[in-house]
Amino acid sequence: MEFTSCFPQWDKLSPAQQRRVLDSVVEKHFEKGAVIHDGSADCTGLLLMRSGQLRAFILSEDGREISIYRLFERDICLFSASCMLRSIRFSVNIEAEKDSDLWVIPAEVYQSLMEQSAPLANYTNELMASRFSEVMWLMEQILWMSMDKRLAAFLLEEAVLEESDSFAITHEQIARHLGTAREVVTRMLRYFRSEGMVSLSRGSIRILDEEKLSRLAEGRL
Amino acid sequence: MEFTSCFPQWDKLSPAQQRRVLDSVVEKHFEKGAVIHDGSADCTGLLLMRSGQLRAFILSEDGREISIYRLFERDICLFSASCMLRSIRFSVNIEAEKDSDLWVIPAEVYQSLMEQSAPLANYTNELMASRFSEVMWLMEQILWMSMDKRLAAFLLEEAVLEESDSFAITHEQIARHLGTAREVVTRMLRYFRSEGMVSLSRGSIRILDEEKLSRLAEGRL
Repeated sequence: MEFTSCFPQWDKLSPAQQRRVLDSVVEKHFEKGAVIHDGSADCTGLLLMRSGQLRAFILSEDGREISIYRLFERDICLFSASCMLRSIRFSVNIEAEKDSDLWVIPAEVYQSLMEQSAPLANYTNELMASRFSEVMWLMEQILWMSMDKRLAAFLLEEAVLEESDSFAITHEQIARHLGTAREVVTRMLRYFRSEGMVSLSRGSIRILDEEKLSRLAEGRL
Repeated sequence: MEFTSCFPQWDKLSPAQQRRVLDSVVEKHFEKGAVIHDGSADCTGLLLMRSGQLRAFILSEDGREISIYRLFERDICLFSASCMLRSIRFSVNIEAEKDSDLWVIPAEVYQSLMEQSAPLANYTNELMASRFSEVMWLMEQILWMSMDKRLAAFLLEEAVLEESDSFAITHEQIARHLGTAREVVTRMLRYFRSEGMVSLSRGSIRILDEEKLSRLAEGRL
């Protein structure tokens, strides 16, 4: 995949602006599990996903987590460069869920281009609106949706991402995705098993009845 | 207050662009309690607050509410014009909490200016980042903070907004702000009363011990 086909509004940048991006971009590889961006501690820069899968999550003071969105091929991670937006007053952590190849653009380079280029600034607006929408969706889930439905939806999403009905994941990891306690996940998975929706083995889960799980997730059960 | 001192980046617009804004802006007055923007049902336009107080909230399918932020003098409401951002996939409701005077700018006018003007697009970015931060703060509260702390913080905020230790509000209204049930609010307010932090009378609340309420809200009690 070509970098220039991934960079937003590339054709609307001047040759000098394009030069500036090409001179500053760095390619980086991260192993599965690597921490890519650690909250407000650093300003990693804008990330363009060449391949792989990232997870963005927030952390409570006492170490609890919840996933807020995921990033895939061609996605752009804005909040790893949140230092360029004065009004961002929250911190997001990013880790690699699969081996990932990224292009990193320094925050100050992207920021100065955005100040010059209305198309790039408007694109960035749409990008933030899109992440905002994901977070609003999550908040609505947390507020109005019970944990059994959220867990059912999460398992179905995992099966799609892993392209398999069976995937390796611990109850602890699921709890961190959903922002709940491990015990809650274990109890609910046992209930799903008793209903014939999943089978459980050490460190992995297999979906047995996708249709029933879907009905549960959508509140039609 | 002058309109041109409230419109973002006014001095960076061309005379023709300024003309376009002035030709399209409409002044509107809303009584306390009026619905100003009804989710995705309409595209009201960009709102500039001349005076008053607005509440932005989301609604569940079964009619539950939670306040996501408030708007005051000179604030700008972007999500009443969310039709201009393709990537916004959630709907926000806006109502007047006090009598309010607003300037309304049609979404298509603001959008076309933003497409031409990098300063305006970047300003809009900061605006969205600011609302995003408020929603992230709220989500962290919902996830990691117990309802007694949230209620204590809410009462202290109300006292500041009303500029009085005593203010008229029903338990039902508080429940809608916090996204919980009226019974939960009533039970907790009775507990606050038993601890000497508030006194309760029909339709109003008086804060008796602000310091203790602050310590509760900050987890120092």
